[in-house]
Amino acid sequence: MSGKNILFLVLLLFVPVSIAAHYLEWGELTVFITAGLAILPLAGWMGTATEEVAVVVGPTVGGLLNATFGNATELIIALVALNAGLVNVVKASITGSIIGNLLLVMGLSMFLGGLRYKEQTFQPVVARVNASSMNLAVIAILLPTAMKFSSQAIEEKTLQNLSLAVAVVLIIVYALTLLFSMKTHTYLYDVGVAEEETHLHKPNIWLWTGILLICTLLVALESEMLVDSLEVATSQLGLTALFTGVILVPIIGNAAEHATAVTVAMKDKMDLSVSVAVGSSMQIALFVAPFLVLAGWVLGQPMDLNFNPFELVAVVVAVLIANSISSDGKSNWLEGVLLLAAYAVLGFAFYFLPVVDGMV
Amino acid sequence: MSGKNILFLVLLLFVPVSIAAHYLEWGELTVFITAGLAILPLAGWMGTATEEVAVVVGPTVGGLLNATFGNATELIIALVALNAGLVNVVKASITGSIIGNLLLVMGLSMFLGGLRYKEQTFQPVVARVNASSMNLAVIAILLPTAMKFSSQAIEEKTLQNLSLAVAVVLIIVYALTLLFSMKTHTYLYDVGVAEEETHLHKPNIWLWTGILLICTLLVALESEMLVDSLEVATSQLGLTALFTGVILVPIIGNAAEHATAVTVAMKDKMDLSVSVAVGSSMQIALFVAPFLVLAGWVLGQPMDLNFNPFELVAVVVAVLIANSISSDGKSNWLEGVLLLAAYAVLGFAFYFLPVVDGMV
Amino acid sequence: MSGKNILFLVLLLFVPVSIAAHYLEWGELTVFITAGLAILPLAGWMGTATEEVAVVVGPTVGGLLNATFGNATELIIALVALNAGLVNVVKASITGSIIGNLLLVMGLSMFLGGLRYKEQTFQPVVARVNASSMNLAVIAILLPTAMKFSSQAIEEKTLQNLSLAVAVVLIIVYALTLLFSMKTHTYLYDVGVAEEETHLHKPNIWLWTGILLICTLLVALESEMLVDSLEVATSQLGLTALFTGVILVPIIGNAAEHATAVTVAMKDKMDLSVSVAVGSSMQIALFVAPFLVLAGWVLGQPMDLNFNPFELVAVVVAVLIANSISSDGKSNWLEGVLLLAAYAVLGFAFYFLPVVDGMV
Repeated sequence: MSGKNILFLVLLLFVPVSIAAHYLEWGELTVFITAGLAILPLAGWMGTATEEVAVVVGPTVGGLLNATFGNATELIIALVALNAGLVNVVKASITGSIIGNLLLVMGLSMFLGGLRYKEQTFQPVVARVNASSMNLAVIAILLPTAMKFSSQAIEEKTLQNLSLAVAVVLIIVYALTLLFSMKTHTYLYDVGVAEEETHLHKPNIWLWTGILLICTLLVALESEMLVDSLEVATSQLGLTALFTGVILVPIIGNAAEHATAVTVAMKDKMDLSVSVAVGSSMQIALFVAPFLVLAGWVLGQPMDLNFNPFELVAVVVAVLIANSISSDGKSNWLEGVLLLAAYAVLGFAFYFLPVVDGMV
Repeated sequence: MSGKNILFLVLLLFVPVSIAAHYLEWGELTVFITAGLAILPLAGWMGTATEEVAVVVGPTVGGLLNATFGNATELIIALVALNAGLVNVVKASITGSIIGNLLLVMGLSMFLGGLRYKEQTFQPVVARVNASSMNLAVIAILLPTAMKFSSQAIEEKTLQNLSLAVAVVLIIVYALTLLFSMKTHTYLYDVGVAEEETHLHKPNIWLWTGILLICTLLVALESEMLVDSLEVATSQLGLTALFTGVILVPIIGNAAEHATAVTVAMKDKMDLSVSVAVGSSMQIALFVAPFLVLAGWVLGQPMDLNFNPFELVAVVVAVLIANSISSDGKSNWLEGVLLLAAYAVLGFAFYFLPVVDGMV
Repeated sequence: MSGKNILFLVLLLFVPVSIAAHYLEWGELTVFITAGLAILPLAGWMGTATEEVAVVVGPTVGGLLNATFGNATELIIALVALNAGLVNVVKASITGSIIGNLLLVMGLSMFLGGLRYKEQTFQPVVARVNASSMNLAVIAILLPTAMKFSSQAIEEKTLQNLSLAVAVVLIIVYALTLLFSMKTHTYLYDVGVAEEETHLHKPNIWLWTGILLICTLLVALESEMLVDSLEVATSQLGLTALFTGVILVPIIGNAAEHATAVTVAMKDKMDLSVSVAVGSSMQIALFVAPFLVLAGWVLGQPMDLNFNPFELVAVVVAVLIANSISSDGKSNWLEGVLLLAAYAVLGFAFYFLPVVDGMV
């Protein structure tokens, strides 16, 4: 049994602990921390279960499954928070996920991988295809912010309409990207990922579907407790809603990808590691963000894509640095340090950023 | 006779129709639409005539001719509009042409070409040389806007002076670029373009010069009618002057390049297709824009380079996405979709952007 | 004796002349100009002396010596100006040095080198490693400005704290970069630089340490006179403090690097030329700027990293153009012209930029 699995089993104990903390009223901060810790192993098991089920149902349905459930944890947390009216936390968690994947996850992977191997290489093909889609999607979701910032006279209603239009365009592009990767140009995506997914046994579909279902329900339950306790807990810690949304929530929601990307990087499979980090950012910008805009509209919690202007700066910075470092298909520990330093500096900035009216 | 030529002959009918619409007062909207349609075949014939004359007069004079007349249609429309005092429409059409060439033209080329060919390749040499000049020129023409936006205290007179200084620098750079491409480093530009221009017959110079002259006069006439009817017609359609300038005018002015770039892309000549799209953007930023600044100064219609801040955002976005997609020298249908999606999203944004004071 | 050395000897005459101008009160403008000219040969000799001493003390200590004394002239001028309370001039000279190295130095090198050689090539490895560090550092030092610009409500105290945090992160990254280049990945940096530093003789360490010491003292003396006369002299010339800091001071402070980079470019050693220009920009952003923030804190002249927003624009522009032009590992005279044109256009903009409150 690997070290990761033992850690997951230990962290599973936080599921009952967090429930107890909630019902026995041990305080909001305790609930927040234990619920956050409980989500980590559940997200990990969801990921494993999704992959196992995907193997059984074949490449096409399996690909769709992976594409939709790949960011399931984040999506569930975001939907619960959206339903609770924490629109600004949800928006901040979108930009935070993109920044976290590109800087923290890729940075940790390159740093820890680079400590073991002097120079690691990866085929930049997959990274580049995903990067182009990601660049477009990131620019698209930031456009309403740029518009608001460059022309103060815009009404909230206009921003809402533009955000819906952007969301629809992005969902269509996402569907076409799936068509591209699963039908017309599959060969571009075969590299690296394939060998990881080679199974010698045939997984038991009923077992894994059951696990997937149970984990999804538990993640939803824990997310409810996390979101309920979030505002009180973070203000006790002296943190703003923006910092919580940009830094804390994405670390919880993306923990599974973090673990995967770092683990494979330390096995010198940088192809897969980079593709997880860039692919996850792409999915957030191309699918999760527009999905949440449409969901907010349906749930009666209208969420536009007008972010804090500094979030725009931070995402642009993250994308530029990640592109600049990943474009040569090589990595070393210093490049990991540079990505982590960029994350640290942005983290400081979000910590110091004052709360302004309009933001929670 | 090719489908394109038949279409051109049919569209030529709009020349008399638009003149009739103007004198018989069929309404501003009718004049606007028919004059716009009439310009399309005239621009196409101007392009053909320029190339034929260029063949006869030899590479150097011919190169200069192509360089100056390459964007003749846009230049004529812009000069007529400038003379009529529609300074903001002219400015918007400059940024719109850059965006349209990089996103709409290149996007359509890659998409339609990609539907026929799984993967298309192009030598990125020409694209890159042009891209560097274009990047510089785009940055230079956006500098006054950035200055105005970052420091509100700037007077109109200062912006005008800075715009003139930028225009002079760009005209000098343009002259040096011609020297580079036609004298010192011709070999860099031989790829792809050469084979397209191989003529088995010697064109009749008097015939083609005559056609060029007649088309130029007719384009000028139609442009007068287009510009005269523009304000009333677009307000009837519920469009702002900014949207008209950024989206509608460039589609009319660049239709010839659109047709060429898409046609050759479908013949798998992506070298030429990309070089038309990037080269046209470069010429607009490096020659058309500074020329119009100097022309406005002479015509007593002073035109600075202070664009709407969101135009700055849109151009930067277009340049970044186009660079990111064209840098690997390969294209497929998804990359075409990404460029078109970016154009659509920017189009929505310009449609929703409210009219503010200062802008028509 | 080379032409450069003869020029240096002639310029050395300005040391006594500037001292005379100061004590005999020949006017602030005379002091400013003669002190500026006197610094040029001193900076050149400091550079030579540092390299000779570095040869004797061995690669590790020598590398550290080169890394710290590489921008010694700029550092001394900046410390003197900071101590005199000219915080805004110091800040402007940081951005000006980055812009000057990337556009003026690299541009002159590529232009003059390109007039002799049709196409020059350089291994982009060193340039790229440095460029990644530089990109990060540049973004980090511009972050407080972006934060201030995107959220007006930030207090001066917060900006000061964020600037200190950024400075500490950058100093750590700088130390790790030195570890990377001198211990773990030395082989990446061997190219080009090595052959230049091959010495057949063993330099006299006492002689060169003496020269280094004397030059440092004289540079400090001349810097005092330069800084004392700066405000009166530049206002006599009709220049703003911003223009002086961004354009004039960096040309004086970086003259030695300018000379080196251009000289080796004309010998077709573009590897070394590009690496000097990019490496110097990197050192300013990664070491000089954070060092000055910490020094200002110690000297009781608190210097935050909140630049004029247009300085942010200018640095981003310089970095993007330099990256775009240097990324293909080839250069020609036109690329040099493009860089110089960008510098000229930015120079015009800084000349026209009005003095606003808050800026000296």
